[in-house]
Amino acid sequence: MSTYIAKNVAALKAYMPGEQPQDRGIIKLNTNENPYPPSPQVTAALATFPAERLRLYPDPRAQALRRRIAALHKCRVEQVFAGNGSDEILALATRAFVENNGSIGYFEPSYSLYPVLAEIRGVTRRPVELAPDFAWRMPEDFCASLFLLTTPNAPTSIQYDRAAVTAFCDAFDGVVLLDEAYVDFARDNYMDLALAATNTNTLVMRTLSKSFSLAGLRLGYAIGPEPLISAMEKIKDSYNLDMLTQAVGLAALSDLEYMRANVRRIQATRERLLAALSAAGWRVLPSETNFLFARPPDGNAWAVFERLRAQKIFVRYFAGPRTGDYLRITIGADPEIDALLAAVG
Amino acid sequence: MSTYIAKNVAALKAYMPGEQPQDRGIIKLNTNENPYPPSPQVTAALATFPAERLRLYPDPRAQALRRRIAALHKCRVEQVFAGNGSDEILALATRAFVENNGSIGYFEPSYSLYPVLAEIRGVTRRPVELAPDFAWRMPEDFCASLFLLTTPNAPTSIQYDRAAVTAFCDAFDGVVLLDEAYVDFARDNYMDLALAATNTNTLVMRTLSKSFSLAGLRLGYAIGPEPLISAMEKIKDSYNLDMLTQAVGLAALSDLEYMRANVRRIQATRERLLAALSAAGWRVLPSETNFLFARPPDGNAWAVFERLRAQKIFVRYFAGPRTGDYLRITIGADPEIDALLAAVG
Repeated sequence: MSTYIAKNVAALKAYMPGEQPQDRGIIKLNTNENPYPPSPQVTAALATFPAERLRLYPDPRAQALRRRIAALHKCRVEQVFAGNGSDEILALATRAFVENNGSIGYFEPSYSLYPVLAEIRGVTRRPVELAPDFAWRMPEDFCASLFLLTTPNAPTSIQYDRAAVTAFCDAFDGVVLLDEAYVDFARDNYMDLALAATNTNTLVMRTLSKSFSLAGLRLGYAIGPEPLISAMEKIKDSYNLDMLTQAVGLAALSDLEYMRANVRRIQATRERLLAALSAAGWRVLPSETNFLFARPPDGNAWAVFERLRAQKIFVRYFAGPRTGDYLRITIGADPEIDALLAAVG
Repeated sequence: MSTYIAKNVAALKAYMPGEQPQDRGIIKLNTNENPYPPSPQVTAALATFPAERLRLYPDPRAQALRRRIAALHKCRVEQVFAGNGSDEILALATRAFVENNGSIGYFEPSYSLYPVLAEIRGVTRRPVELAPDFAWRMPEDFCASLFLLTTPNAPTSIQYDRAAVTAFCDAFDGVVLLDEAYVDFARDNYMDLALAATNTNTLVMRTLSKSFSLAGLRLGYAIGPEPLISAMEKIKDSYNLDMLTQAVGLAALSDLEYMRANVRRIQATRERLLAALSAAGWRVLPSETNFLFARPPDGNAWAVFERLRAQKIFVRYFAGPRTGDYLRITIGADPEIDALLAAVG
């Protein structure tokens, strides 16, 4: 072990992202990617991008992109932070809103990156066990510097109740970051909490990875009170968003109708898969995302995972007492879902 | 002041990058960009990039790109870290190699981001004053967890002696990060120190922003001992490099001849400008970079800065007792340098 490495980093078990196989023959339902290509406006933005401009630095404040996001959510550009994927925003939040002797809270099960972020930051982890059926449950006396809250949750696919989320944000004495990565597939969203004039502690985060079919681009944004946004701006890398990401992101955000049409197709496929698996005896949680969290009839999720994998169908398995009986299945295109159903049938 | 913001962040005076004006009529010699466009292979890579692939996540380990970099420097891919610009690598180094009670060293004057990085990390700053004429000078008893060393240095344009750098890396009980952002414009480089079999503490960092004309892309890399590289891999954002950056970077690194031809043109322009300014009574430091650090005859650099700005020629001015008599002038294309000479003449 090198003596030059900080102790918390040396001890760290790194986050393991879902597999990204290069074999194009695989039916890839393991990392919640969108089965449909991004908007034709994205293709056009790329095709017409003047490569010679790349010799110059990008706009360090990403003004055109942030203005578009602000217009979308009817807020001021100073309430918008744009990041190199939501991952960058999460990492910045752990530094902007948490002291060295602070703590980071999150539900369990939820995004498995959260405990790793607390370890990287070298602060106390405050996991909160969800209730049976993965429902909201927050201890009365819970406290932390920062709470990372995916809603709808992953890997459970469930959206939390408005009343619970609102009461928590109101009462919590720390920053709440509502990660709405999947919200375009849900019935409700909590952007209004981030935009409320009385709000001082709540951020909402969005990504272009899922509903906009741009996981390869790395673009996320957070919206909330100006002092919180400005704190993240102060500590970000100056040029965190390259020129291409700014241009392509702007194009995608200018074609909401295309995104929404894809979302409707995915929702329809989702309901079809949910019905088919339920009919086959699976327990499937009510999804408001682009994936299902589903327990096979005998609870032997690992066996199904392996059987699917042998047939080149990749889904996601999360070991552990709460999640080990379930598979997380991304909603692919209809033929992919037909292949999945044939394979588990 | 929001009570939710970490104290070191609330107190932070953010780094101010050089101005990026949107007015295309400006002669922009202020941020060390390359006046020539990137390789035609970059244009081709962009033009042929299949936009529909963006729906998928990028390779989180950037294998193809890192393999290319490893081949270039004749090392193992495990010795290569690829980052979202050198800025990301610097920020990761401050967390991977520095404990909460550690310290970060750097020369003064040097890259003005370094003290800001120490502030963001919330650790002790250990600036080291350079000798008169901005020459190497390191106290015998100097210690720090991490030393950030730009060589050739900015804004001074001077390359440090091999003997001094080697002896320092050998003796220093901490990690040395040699930032070789400008090294393609220099006579010598210190990559061999990072690649020496006996090396356990020295990293060399490169960027595609300058010599490869890709400041807009955000791609930097670090090379060194596997334990140090692996520590940074553990704490980076999983998908820190988007798909376009990986593809375009690979294309640029496959056309070294184009880069080298541009470097030779810039070196020729540099020597011409150096001679002309010297003949006009300026004191010009011997540059091994794509910029000059130059003192006007009367030492009133600010007045020259303002006069140039009035004529839409942007250069960089760094206030302070050591730097305030000088201007940092990026080597532009020949007509831009002619315009500069006419304006100061």
